[in-house]
Amino acid sequence: MPTYTHGGDIWAYSRPMLDFSANLHPLGMPPAVAEAARSAVADAVHYPDPLCRALRGAIARRDGVPPEQVLCGGGAADLIVRLCLALRPRSALVTAPTFSEYEEGLRLTGCGVRRHLLLPEGQFDLTDAILPEIREGLDVLFLCNPNNPTGRLIDPDLLSEICRRCGQTGTRLVVDECFLELTEGDGAAGLLRENPHLFLLRAFTKTYAIPGLRLGYGLCADLDLLDRMSRAGQPWGVSTVAQAAGVAACALPDWPEQGRALLREQRPFLLRGLEELGCAVWAGAANYLLFRVPGVFDLKERLEGQGILIRSCANYPGLGPDYYRTAVRTGGENSALLRALKEVLQ
Amino acid sequence: MPTYTHGGDIWAYSRPMLDFSANLHPLGMPPAVAEAARSAVADAVHYPDPLCRALRGAIARRDGVPPEQVLCGGGAADLIVRLCLALRPRSALVTAPTFSEYEEGLRLTGCGVRRHLLLPEGQFDLTDAILPEIREGLDVLFLCNPNNPTGRLIDPDLLSEICRRCGQTGTRLVVDECFLELTEGDGAAGLLRENPHLFLLRAFTKTYAIPGLRLGYGLCADLDLLDRMSRAGQPWGVSTVAQAAGVAACALPDWPEQGRALLREQRPFLLRGLEELGCAVWAGAANYLLFRVPGVFDLKERLEGQGILIRSCANYPGLGPDYYRTAVRTGGENSALLRALKEVLQ
Repeated sequence: MPTYTHGGDIWAYSRPMLDFSANLHPLGMPPAVAEAARSAVADAVHYPDPLCRALRGAIARRDGVPPEQVLCGGGAADLIVRLCLALRPRSALVTAPTFSEYEEGLRLTGCGVRRHLLLPEGQFDLTDAILPEIREGLDVLFLCNPNNPTGRLIDPDLLSEICRRCGQTGTRLVVDECFLELTEGDGAAGLLRENPHLFLLRAFTKTYAIPGLRLGYGLCADLDLLDRMSRAGQPWGVSTVAQAAGVAACALPDWPEQGRALLREQRPFLLRGLEELGCAVWAGAANYLLFRVPGVFDLKERLEGQGILIRSCANYPGLGPDYYRTAVRTGGENSALLRALKEVLQ
Repeated sequence: MPTYTHGGDIWAYSRPMLDFSANLHPLGMPPAVAEAARSAVADAVHYPDPLCRALRGAIARRDGVPPEQVLCGGGAADLIVRLCLALRPRSALVTAPTFSEYEEGLRLTGCGVRRHLLLPEGQFDLTDAILPEIREGLDVLFLCNPNNPTGRLIDPDLLSEICRRCGQTGTRLVVDECFLELTEGDGAAGLLRENPHLFLLRAFTKTYAIPGLRLGYGLCADLDLLDRMSRAGQPWGVSTVAQAAGVAACALPDWPEQGRALLREQRPFLLRGLEELGCAVWAGAANYLLFRVPGVFDLKERLEGQGILIRSCANYPGLGPDYYRTAVRTGGENSALLRALKEVLQ
């Protein structure tokens, strides 16, 4: 039985669980997206559009990029694997902590991976200390903005400087913006045209709460790279249902802001509540919060007993066994989490 | 824009096309499968079960194998890529003609690929001429049963002998049985237990006409290989919708036979009709037929003008520009194809 190292595995439990281990738009799936997905089942008697023509057009309009600079995949995780297979890098840099799939994808191709350590005392922020690590011979740098699991955004000036430097050293810069729409931060799409070495990873998963449909995309001005990625995996990577859901999602321009508005209220509420329970919380900007309960290594298991799932961060390089991540959900759900935490931490 | 080399791309046309270029159960998607897929959209607010627990159990019961010998993927094409990445073979043998994704997957890992030529005058049948090609140093052999696009089945005694020989030479034997349930042939699952080097590739795509949902699986007694395959790609390769559809499909034991019964009648009808129009047809056993219209290189384009899609086989190594493949569909549809063919061949 293969091991599974991420959050969101509600299927491992025999009873319904309130899931704070996956980080999704707090209002769930938009009804119009659900309806489009259901309607598309009838079209699934055909192979999906291998080139995702309608979806790429919709994304291009939504994100303000030319459609040929869009590549869709079966979730951002599918695109990470394709990117690594297409690049075949020999030397890569990731931060620690960060989303583990970058390193998993890189190791598939036998790439050497160095880790740039982010420090708890510096809020785990990316700083210009990374600049000297961007050198000739570094093939690819993966950054996550906001970072997972810290929720911290990258300073836009620093990101521009990193992008400039990567251009000089021949380093491919991958910026994972999958959670960015649920923060107040700005995306880096404006940098794409002048920087063909920049690859932006985005997903519908979080913003539209459709992790079960598998839909992500990449933006890049290097069309040859996108072509190689499309061939570095199966030709039908995005299901008919996911394509229809994505097109419907693009027609809902207000949905991300509805999530952000709720999060502006709930993020500080949950953060304060966690601190009042004695947790050390990092003030992330995303729809999740990283916190530590010093000396408590079994908080995940304790909360499971209460029907609640959180993400243990013990397997993130750079963190420790008493680090945890929780999603920020709606007010009632966040209160339920705080009540359960109070009970298990007493 | 990446190129696309298979059939089934109805999305490239501005009007509805009658699609004989993809080969699916002639009765389409079972209503219970469609309903399960639609219902599962609500569950797609969660990540899919990464281990496909319920689906693997259902497949195991259906196919008479232990659940741990089942690995699910986002279509058989996803599993081919994972298999190649997990095996990292240096030397592979495929037949010509056959499904091109084996070679695509193998080339992703830089594997050398030899082609064993199947001959039109021998009905493109696999014969014992392949046995001497199975030698020490051959890492993997891909066979397709029935073969695509010829529809010819492998003689069961020959397959057993090939399997025995591969065991001796340390060669991984992959048998693609994705179309087998729509023939009268028998699967090789009985060989699995004694032959951990045997990998069977199966799919729901054809038997339940759900190519748009992306669902396939592999059967193998080498559990270490299955574990490596599960890590050779994203952790959420099978969507929530596809998993639910698969579970529902496994609850319909009579569905494949309903397709076979129709095909027993329609396959000879279509074959005879093609021959009467002057086509050379190979008597395949599957839900598709390979035929040749000597000297006619634009039959696909001519039929497009009639609103009908067939598969040009010009890009299959071992065939030529006047080879075509058509699905066998229902009686009315097959008659429509023959009428259109008569018109464009006049």
